[in-house]
Amino acid sequence: MTTFTRSFTVNTAGENSYLDLTAKIRDMISRSDVMEGVASIFLYSTTASLIICENETGLLSDIVERARAFAPDEFEYRHNLAWHDDNGRSHVKATLFRQDLTIPIRGGDIDVGTWQSIFLLEFDVRPRERRLSITAMGE
Amino acid sequence: MTTFTRSFTVNTAGENSYLDLTAKIRDMISRSDVMEGVASIFLYSTTASLIICENETGLLSDIVERARAFAPDEFEYRHNLAWHDDNGRSHVKATLFRQDLTIPIRGGDIDVGTWQSIFLLEFDVRPRERRLSITAMGE
Amino acid sequence: MTTFTRSFTVNTAGENSYLDLTAKIRDMISRSDVMEGVASIFLYSTTASLIICENETGLLSDIVERARAFAPDEFEYRHNLAWHDDNGRSHVKATLFRQDLTIPIRGGDIDVGTWQSIFLLEFDVRPRERRLSITAMGE
Repeated sequence: MTTFTRSFTVNTAGENSYLDLTAKIRDMISRSDVMEGVASIFLYSTTASLIICENETGLLSDIVERARAFAPDEFEYRHNLAWHDDNGRSHVKATLFRQDLTIPIRGGDIDVGTWQSIFLLEFDVRPRERRLSITAMGE
Repeated sequence: MTTFTRSFTVNTAGENSYLDLTAKIRDMISRSDVMEGVASIFLYSTTASLIICENETGLLSDIVERARAFAPDEFEYRHNLAWHDDNGRSHVKATLFRQDLTIPIRGGDIDVGTWQSIFLLEFDVRPRERRLSITAMGE
Repeated sequence: MTTFTRSFTVNTAGENSYLDLTAKIRDMISRSDVMEGVASIFLYSTTASLIICENETGLLSDIVERARAFAPDEFEYRHNLAWHDDNGRSHVKATLFRQDLTIPIRGGDIDVGTWQSIFLLEFDVRPRERRLSITAMGE
């Protein structure tokens, strides 16, 4: 068995923007020696998330809208009193949608469904540089 | 250390139906050589999810109802404009409840709490065949 | 490659209380032989969750409030009819916020972002003893 690690950064376009990371992760895993195992992807952020969904613009807009209903813009977030950066909603949504994701590796490639893409969803109120890591383990 | 992989399919009964996968996963893990480690379960779908909850009919109904409040039937999903299959709500709920789940293996068995069962929760608007994989790693 | 396992218990203060587990998990991982890999943390509960968020009191209050909006106190939970322990809302929120969390290990330490802390969020209606396990794997 072997362990393969990589880290990388991406730049987001601000609140409710998203990036499809599937091709980038696929490329990294294809360069590893792991043929059968898993890849654990981790996002070093408390105001953005890693999700799986179909790569379809309307759907991503729907996810953003329903997430906004969960943590509305106009709610009086106590967090905003602490830092005054007005991103309480970003933190709440990021915690809900999470920062860790573990996907299978089969035949030296990430093994996801036909319609499954891996997205970084930015919840913060301004564009951010985001750091991620991949840990692939297996045989 | 060793890696053990399996895949399987199940058939669901349509929107808001669910299947308890605990016994099936337990059986697969018990046939592996992994005694101490983890099992990563993955569902190849964008309209169904893997969750942990107590196996109690009322609770599963409650989860379904609160998920419906998060992504209501009557919302105007933009995704429905793209494909016209009227399952925008299914995609949104599936992304929220996720497709990956990692559980411990101890003594050659999955190690979950007394009340913890692993469920596939179907959000799509029609019955579907669902494919899953298990990757067990450890010693 | 090596596998390292530990389990531990913590005591919670009841509904919507939380515990920062970051230092405890960091200490355990630093005593393992895993230098590069992942740590999978698992909570043996159906009424509490593991989340990542900033350690800021106002934010934790915001998360609790928005989770309450998702599964309101006053909803007629069918689960409450089964057990009469009035914690249907606790189960629904715990399923949503999950019990499994996988984080990277780098340089023999857990590798999380500057603002990322690992919290146990108690949703049950009374104080509970909670059991958790860590499985670290890697090189």
